Amino acid sequence: MGSFATPKNPEFSARAAKQFELQPMMAHLGATMLVIEPGYVEIHMPYDARLTQQHGYVHGGALATIADSAAGFAAFTLMAEDKQPLTVEYKLNTLRPAIGELFVAKARVLKAGRTLTVVDSDVYARRGDDEILCLRSLQTIIGLSGRTDAEALIESVDQGS
Amino acid sequence: MGSFATPKNPEFSARAAKQFELQPMMAHLGATMLVIEPGYVEIHMPYDARLTQQHGYVHGGALATIADSAAGFAAFTLMAEDKQPLTVEYKLNTLRPAIGELFVAKARVLKAGRTLTVVDSDVYARRGDDEILCLRSLQTIIGLSGRTDAEALIESVDQGS
Amino acid sequence: MGSFATPKNPEFSARAAKQFELQPMMAHLGATMLVIEPGYVEIHMPYDARLTQQHGYVHGGALATIADSAAGFAAFTLMAEDKQPLTVEYKLNTLRPAIGELFVAKARVLKAGRTLTVVDSDVYARRGDDEILCLRSLQTIIGLSGRTDAEALIESVDQGS
Amino acid sequence: MGSFATPKNPEFSARAAKQFELQPMMAHLGATMLVIEPGYVEIHMPYDARLTQQHGYVHGGALATIADSAAGFAAFTLMAEDKQPLTVEYKLNTLRPAIGELFVAKARVLKAGRTLTVVDSDVYARRGDDEILCLRSLQTIIGLSGRTDAEALIESVDQGS
Repeated sequence: MGSFATPKNPEFSARAAKQFELQPMMAHLGATMLVIEPGYVEIHMPYDARLTQQHGYVHGGALATIADSAAGFAAFTLMAEDKQPLTVEYKLNTLRPAIGELFVAKARVLKAGRTLTVVDSDVYARRGDDEILCLRSLQTIIGLSGRTDAEALIESVDQGS
Repeated sequence: MGSFATPKNPEFSARAAKQFELQPMMAHLGATMLVIEPGYVEIHMPYDARLTQQHGYVHGGALATIADSAAGFAAFTLMAEDKQPLTVEYKLNTLRPAIGELFVAKARVLKAGRTLTVVDSDVYARRGDDEILCLRSLQTIIGLSGRTDAEALIESVDQGS
Repeated sequence: MGSFATPKNPEFSARAAKQFELQPMMAHLGATMLVIEPGYVEIHMPYDARLTQQHGYVHGGALATIADSAAGFAAFTLMAEDKQPLTVEYKLNTLRPAIGELFVAKARVLKAGRTLTVVDSDVYARRGDDEILCLRSLQTIIGLSGRTDAEALIESVDQGS
Repeated sequence: MGSFATPKNPEFSARAAKQFELQPMMAHLGATMLVIEPGYVEIHMPYDARLTQQHGYVHGGALATIADSAAGFAAFTLMAEDKQPLTVEYKLNTLRPAIGELFVAKARVLKAGRTLTVVDSDVYARRGDDEILCLRSLQTIIGLSGRTDAEALIESVDQGS
């Protein structure tokens, strides 16, 4: 798939970090974005009892949220300065129960097209020295151009029917 | 697709409500399951600034979480007493920004097979008197039988490679 | 989701029919597009032993092909004159074995956005007077603008990594 | 995810090859299964004008069919003797136009569980010495046990609503 050596926006890392900080949901989950490279990011989320389901594992929705967020930011690292990422769709498979001290979403761009970016985004559970694949997803992200304010976003998306 | 007039477990509603209460993640999102019918459930989640992303909309991950949970419980209402639902996989499309006072996940069983249940699960945003479709998903749920404790669940799922 | 009363291109039906005729794969499967309405098309494919798998049912791939094609044409009916549809991605669930005399893909646009169109596309088997849902899919189609020749298409799609 | 050194069925290769030969649809597409290893198979399909769409590329449905078939056979190589694979669902992304002399579906088992097998299945286009990734998919396969005849299959699948 080649390397993504030359991001269109040299400030990609600072921009991604800043956007991440602006998402209250990430703080609500206790998630932080610890790795930001061209076409690749990692979001880490420690185990927290408030995020669990009835069996004591972390809820699949919490894993899906960091997988989704990581995919968007991985795409964002390769976008031009005037673009904002938006999740078009994704599919995920839950492979193993989310048991561990830490959950790490690793998202890697598979193809960065002019309009759409396709991203592989997986979540691993850290248990001691082991890292176990819990969730695999395949995501499509769109880069929306133009004004970055909310109204522009709505206008771009909420068209048609 | 016909009606699901005769759930295998007459206590389906009380059981589902009880399982829901045992999920800390649902409380963390402020979500409640307000409708439980055979093959159909609704999960309601009011707007909360802690659940938002950088544009002030509710994060797609929060919507995905209630869509996922609703799909599992819709499948659960039709399962035999010794079965527990587990999300195998899903795919979702984000259709419109999550803007509203309340978000309602509506999950309806499309096909309840012997082992697998396929569920349509959509999320709507309530804005005043309007209800706008924000997210569509198609989900596959497995009914795991046997002991209901965590170890049995792991054993059932975490097999093979 | 409302009606699609006013296609952007009044010639949508003739254009779609013409494009369909240009697809050798549809003839290879014996498929015809019998219904073309704004935001909705049907593709019909009679049972043919050459399309079957080892159990004598029609191969899931043949059903997927007409579901995919129907989704693209349903999106196409609502596109402006200079746009061509291209399948970005889809997810499908196989619900029941493909047993019948005729297989009918029914695709309906769920949301026609500026760039992307999301389509529900299902395949039914006709057995005598019954019509049985065999396959459900959820598809994302992009409208590519500009020159309609192959090179333009490649250029539009095969960008980036 | 580790190796699959010990298939449950030592005859996996001959069995898979035999089942493949029994699928008329594969012959109709000109597809052959050239590699069969534990947890991995390849299906090769040469370019054929009858398989194309209006731009002269191979139709996405033909690629999807070999990706689907490869995923099922990759899962099959790891199943016990009394199991038959059936596609539960998959999601695919089309990444680049299907231009080439040959199309190769490469399916690798990601997780082989007791009931379900999750498979990565990609399709590459060979153009001269290059091999270009055209399609990525993520698939869920179920192993159906019991009698192998068609009636058993229907009974297993076509349950419930």
